[in-house]
Amino acid sequence: MKTFLVSGAAVAAVLFGPAVASAASPEDAAFIFNTLSFLANGALVFAMAIGFCMLEAGMVRTKSTSAICVKNIGLFSIAGVTYAIVGYNLMYSGVDGGFVGSLGLFDTPDPAAEAADGGYAAASDWFFQVVFVATTASIVSGAVAERVRVIPFLLVIAVLVAVIYPIQGAWSWGGGWLSELGFSDFAGSTIVHSVGGWCALAGIILLGARHGKFSVDGKVNPVQASAVPLVALGAFVLWIGWLGFNGGSQLALGSVADASAMARIYANTYLAGCGGALAAAATYFAVYRKLDITLILNGVLGGLVSITAEPLAPSFVQAILIGGIGGVIVALGVPFLDRLKLDDVVGAVPVHLFAGVWGTIAVCLTNPEASLVAQLIGIVAIGLFAFAGSVLVWYAVKLILGIRLDEEAEMHGSDLMEVGVVSYPEFVAGRSG
Amino acid sequence: MKTFLVSGAAVAAVLFGPAVASAASPEDAAFIFNTLSFLANGALVFAMAIGFCMLEAGMVRTKSTSAICVKNIGLFSIAGVTYAIVGYNLMYSGVDGGFVGSLGLFDTPDPAAEAADGGYAAASDWFFQVVFVATTASIVSGAVAERVRVIPFLLVIAVLVAVIYPIQGAWSWGGGWLSELGFSDFAGSTIVHSVGGWCALAGIILLGARHGKFSVDGKVNPVQASAVPLVALGAFVLWIGWLGFNGGSQLALGSVADASAMARIYANTYLAGCGGALAAAATYFAVYRKLDITLILNGVLGGLVSITAEPLAPSFVQAILIGGIGGVIVALGVPFLDRLKLDDVVGAVPVHLFAGVWGTIAVCLTNPEASLVAQLIGIVAIGLFAFAGSVLVWYAVKLILGIRLDEEAEMHGSDLMEVGVVSYPEFVAGRSG
Amino acid sequence: MKTFLVSGAAVAAVLFGPAVASAASPEDAAFIFNTLSFLANGALVFAMAIGFCMLEAGMVRTKSTSAICVKNIGLFSIAGVTYAIVGYNLMYSGVDGGFVGSLGLFDTPDPAAEAADGGYAAASDWFFQVVFVATTASIVSGAVAERVRVIPFLLVIAVLVAVIYPIQGAWSWGGGWLSELGFSDFAGSTIVHSVGGWCALAGIILLGARHGKFSVDGKVNPVQASAVPLVALGAFVLWIGWLGFNGGSQLALGSVADASAMARIYANTYLAGCGGALAAAATYFAVYRKLDITLILNGVLGGLVSITAEPLAPSFVQAILIGGIGGVIVALGVPFLDRLKLDDVVGAVPVHLFAGVWGTIAVCLTNPEASLVAQLIGIVAIGLFAFAGSVLVWYAVKLILGIRLDEEAEMHGSDLMEVGVVSYPEFVAGRSG
Repeated sequence: MKTFLVSGAAVAAVLFGPAVASAASPEDAAFIFNTLSFLANGALVFAMAIGFCMLEAGMVRTKSTSAICVKNIGLFSIAGVTYAIVGYNLMYSGVDGGFVGSLGLFDTPDPAAEAADGGYAAASDWFFQVVFVATTASIVSGAVAERVRVIPFLLVIAVLVAVIYPIQGAWSWGGGWLSELGFSDFAGSTIVHSVGGWCALAGIILLGARHGKFSVDGKVNPVQASAVPLVALGAFVLWIGWLGFNGGSQLALGSVADASAMARIYANTYLAGCGGALAAAATYFAVYRKLDITLILNGVLGGLVSITAEPLAPSFVQAILIGGIGGVIVALGVPFLDRLKLDDVVGAVPVHLFAGVWGTIAVCLTNPEASLVAQLIGIVAIGLFAFAGSVLVWYAVKLILGIRLDEEAEMHGSDLMEVGVVSYPEFVAGRSG
Repeated sequence: MKTFLVSGAAVAAVLFGPAVASAASPEDAAFIFNTLSFLANGALVFAMAIGFCMLEAGMVRTKSTSAICVKNIGLFSIAGVTYAIVGYNLMYSGVDGGFVGSLGLFDTPDPAAEAADGGYAAASDWFFQVVFVATTASIVSGAVAERVRVIPFLLVIAVLVAVIYPIQGAWSWGGGWLSELGFSDFAGSTIVHSVGGWCALAGIILLGARHGKFSVDGKVNPVQASAVPLVALGAFVLWIGWLGFNGGSQLALGSVADASAMARIYANTYLAGCGGALAAAATYFAVYRKLDITLILNGVLGGLVSITAEPLAPSFVQAILIGGIGGVIVALGVPFLDRLKLDDVVGAVPVHLFAGVWGTIAVCLTNPEASLVAQLIGIVAIGLFAFAGSVLVWYAVKLILGIRLDEEAEMHGSDLMEVGVVSYPEFVAGRSG
Repeated sequence: MKTFLVSGAAVAAVLFGPAVASAASPEDAAFIFNTLSFLANGALVFAMAIGFCMLEAGMVRTKSTSAICVKNIGLFSIAGVTYAIVGYNLMYSGVDGGFVGSLGLFDTPDPAAEAADGGYAAASDWFFQVVFVATTASIVSGAVAERVRVIPFLLVIAVLVAVIYPIQGAWSWGGGWLSELGFSDFAGSTIVHSVGGWCALAGIILLGARHGKFSVDGKVNPVQASAVPLVALGAFVLWIGWLGFNGGSQLALGSVADASAMARIYANTYLAGCGGALAAAATYFAVYRKLDITLILNGVLGGLVSITAEPLAPSFVQAILIGGIGGVIVALGVPFLDRLKLDDVVGAVPVHLFAGVWGTIAVCLTNPEASLVAQLIGIVAIGLFAFAGSVLVWYAVKLILGIRLDEEAEMHGSDLMEVGVVSYPEFVAGRSG
């Protein structure tokens, strides 16, 4: 009798013990609010996977669009499976001021064993954490698009999500040495975004640029996004997902203070995106007299990354400004990478790494508890580990399998060569580069 | 004074009686949590309509894309209206161990009449149930696309959602004979997904294949998806919507046990989709050395359908495996249908019917309360009823109105002939089949 | 230690005072529910920005698609920044029966200062309000697309969101003279939708039609939507967002009565969209024997706008009918505008203004507290103010900067001329009008 509460409860009772109460005591209510926050905010972070997939599908050329979808579904699935098996425990189990948690299968939480004084359902915490892992992985796929081979890419991702991300995460969120040092990264400007950015940068360097992106005479040949509305869709979905990313990172909703903090975080996150968009637009317009949509969308994301390390302490105006500086960083960072002949297809490095560093430093501007030294140590330590680890993995996979499409395959595109499914078969390709 | 809580409460008070309390007693809190779960998880299921529409719009050819959008908006609207008028009562009112509920208009729930001991707001339950009806209908539209006529299709759907779905739903969720027998289908692998699949199969058989899909010499001519990113968007949105589909089917959030169960369901649902994606990809790759994106996306959905009958009892690893087997079923089911010369445009039958049967049987693997006999009786009884009923309706509409586009109309496409709106007028169609 | 509740609470405690309780008292629970409603429903309204952007991106031609994305991101960002700086206070601070609130920067709410008896977190209310402002602005961009210049458009929007919207909002929701008069507009058929519609109408008149839309001999040349699936995506996302738009406007979730009211509003909102879709489809089909998808989607929106002024009092059947009349209004309103030679690219005026007026009047049919006189006074007063204010602003910007692309720029499209990014560079444009 699906429609009657009593039977839903009865089913649960069968599986998990005593009858379900029809009243939520104050202790129960706090537990339920906290759990609900993880689930609802986690669902918003889940949506970020959609955002990344659409943004990247719109940014790459039509010959690489099916492949980018495979990569995004693949990394999202691998992140889930590995985090269930090893990642979570590596990050959170018995770190105790040290460098790494324990190995071993994550024990599926038993609802019957949960008690109100546990604070929240263990599975809801796992769910909220796993979508952060997936976010980290999503950052990489766009940057290395159009010349990386799909399966080697997914192997690199498997190591990133099963090993690199959880270990550095153990240092801070897992209660390791960085947290003891006072490193403060509320929702992950460094822990999530810069780590994705470092792995992307390693891939970009080891892969090299797409053919034709940089001429031998040093000229940069811009490669145009193939479907701008998908880029806008992706960025907008990321923006809304970020409300949950930052808001849920309050990690509790069971008190007036927590609910009020989450509300301020939602507002600040919205506003940092506004600041990023407007500042990126203004910066670009000042030079080129155009309103480049992909840059503006990356400006939104740069603003969001910037507020992620400390979305609670800033006032509304401070949030706009912190995000705005993130937008400027993105507007300057994109051509800067071009000048270094680093071919970042979607601008992931400026958005997630450069703005991530800025956001982590900016914590000191509004949070009196933060120390600049601790922030810098965290940025550098995590950066060294994530970058070196990524280089190692990219390099190992390169040696074993190869990571790059051969020239002919790159010309025809990964869709045809690896996926076997052309992304828009009925549309005649024109300027396909 | 929209901004002041007191006036919002005052407005409610005017309409619904006494002053609204500024405190939620433990009984009130349980009621509110339960209601909130129906609304929030129901909104996620609502999003599945978007998922189906996008997945189908990407899978069909550009000459049928506007029509698939009409069908999806149409079926979603018809599902809402009929469920308000007859469906809900037919499914849930006074079934009492029998075969069907009562006829008659659903009484709009009166907020003033709700009391905490009712457990949840009656309208929130209606909302959560109606989006399940809509899901059932959405499954059909993709399968029969590109040769079915729009209005006859919508007539079939009207009978599906107003009669077939509610009657078989009454047998189990409505408290009818199947529930007394111990048939266990938590969120609807059989009750929702297989029913949609059976109706789709009936339509596929009675309509016949699209012209050119099967050559006279027996060869299968694959028809390519016209816009792969929309397929990916759709599948991803279905995935997130499924969190609510399964999680909300706990039917309660007002206790520590319910919240903990919902958390585990969210995690298991995520993981079953991961398993489905990876297993479908591996199966296909083993044979074809390609990573077919549409198959992988259908693998996600197959994994999700598989976990739907029992998303709570499995451990994380079991959820991955149950979903993984669903992915394999989809990877094998798609060519199997082709061999039978059944033209299922989006793979709805393998995904929703085949994996739905698997998921319903798989309940016995993890839920000690389930009985294989009861599961098989449920699968067969509902299958017979849904398939026979669907054949009857498809056939009746075929006799009265005709259900298939004539050959010329099919060649030009439903968009031009029935909708009058071409889906991408500025893009030159190339390989339009 | 991100994963442990205690440390999340500890962080909050450091910033905001005393230790966070692990129990939510009945007073706390009501506060948290109310806050959660603002955040979760606000996130749904946030999604409406995505809906508008996609709907408009699909409706305009490919030469204007990047520009419409710039406009939507721009207006969303400007709405956020201005509402933080002046809008909120102008609308809600000390209106007290009068015509306008106070000037001055909005004070960022301090979580430490929130107490349970405040009813909800102040920042959550701000968040819920700001997404309404953004919605108002989104309505305008589609109507004036394809010939308006981007920066002048954004200047008009800045005045709309910083001055016009908040002032008329102060009259009713802010507790001003219209609220004292008994004007009743639950979620904003007039206050949000018609205001957006009036500003759009002013822009349409002052801009003139796109070249070629109306022939010199009086013939109307329909301009086709360039990407129908994006229009469907947009409309569907708006529909789901509208659940939060209307449901969240209950402004409270902390009591059984509030939760029950919100549930009924969700159901009614869903059903009004159904009614709008079916009625628009039937009206159009009766005349043209086609099922025009863009009209049907606008019918959904017309139904939703119609129920917005009173989504609570109607029964389910009444909601279907009120929405259905909205759908008919849209079906008749679109050709009516054409006859007046007003070029509304997306049908914003029929949907948001015409159906908004109908919805505001329809309040009297189901809410016994409403007075027709008060409703008419509200419609006219707000209409006069919003239209006159908009004409003034459009005209002033026209004088200072010019608002319209010159003929050559319009021919080549705003994407090329102002954005510098072509929306689909690899697809060969065919019938680009």
